Amino acid sequence: MTVLNASARALLESDALVHLVTLNADGSPQVSCVWVGLDGDEIVSGHLDQRQKLRNVRRDPRVALSVEGSGSNPIGLREYLVVHGTARVEAGGASELLQRLAHVYFGPDVVFPPPEHAAPGYILRVTPERVGGVGPWTD
Amino acid sequence: MTVLNASARALLESDALVHLVTLNADGSPQVSCVWVGLDGDEIVSGHLDQRQKLRNVRRDPRVALSVEGSGSNPIGLREYLVVHGTARVEAGGASELLQRLAHVYFGPDVVFPPPEHAAPGYILRVTPERVGGVGPWTD
Repeated sequence: MTVLNASARALLESDALVHLVTLNADGSPQVSCVWVGLDGDEIVSGHLDQRQKLRNVRRDPRVALSVEGSGSNPIGLREYLVVHGTARVEAGGASELLQRLAHVYFGPDVVFPPPEHAAPGYILRVTPERVGGVGPWTD
Repeated sequence: MTVLNASARALLESDALVHLVTLNADGSPQVSCVWVGLDGDEIVSGHLDQRQKLRNVRRDPRVALSVEGSGSNPIGLREYLVVHGTARVEAGGASELLQRLAHVYFGPDVVFPPPEHAAPGYILRVTPERVGGVGPWTD
């Protein structure tokens, strides 16, 4: 069963940037902002080349991600969602996923990645395990 | 010498939420969004009570934080700043710092924390060591 309720799913399918944390070889945190979407109950992001975060996930699958919402809680603090989970790297499919996400993040007519940069790449798949933050996702 | 240039300093002094990563006892990442300001070259946040992130920092001082900027890079990707650093916890001063930050995050006339919740608390001080992300802070 998924830990993401409808509010969390809507935020993860919006054009909000996702701050993704992976763990470096020395255990220190590595952060980058990525586009994400949902594929069933998994949170997916596309990567055209082998970056630090993918190497990190192959070594230690524990990840966390955070996303800002657009609302505020009753005392005025801005909403944000945190998801803790486990990630895996799948080869291929990055360009197709990035094109789908570009329609959300850039607009309906955008071609992205540009054809000369298209590549099979990798998809990072996060299985959510625990939700936190401030907002309707922790109800 | 600080690793923060003028653009990074301006973003950290703005009302942008900061996604702060600390490390749990089992090495997994813990994320929460906080208000921050600058005190000289340190990034400071105020905490009225002893939260997980403070316990984490006392055990392992390695932290990372990320903040979204308002601009985009030449291919349209939204700017964001990542700071890797070392944190320490200082007792006291939280209410005064939160009041100063509330003027940035909420507005010039806001009283925060409410007097009944004021407490010495703790200040988290991050010494920036390395800057990343997308934007003028990596120039």
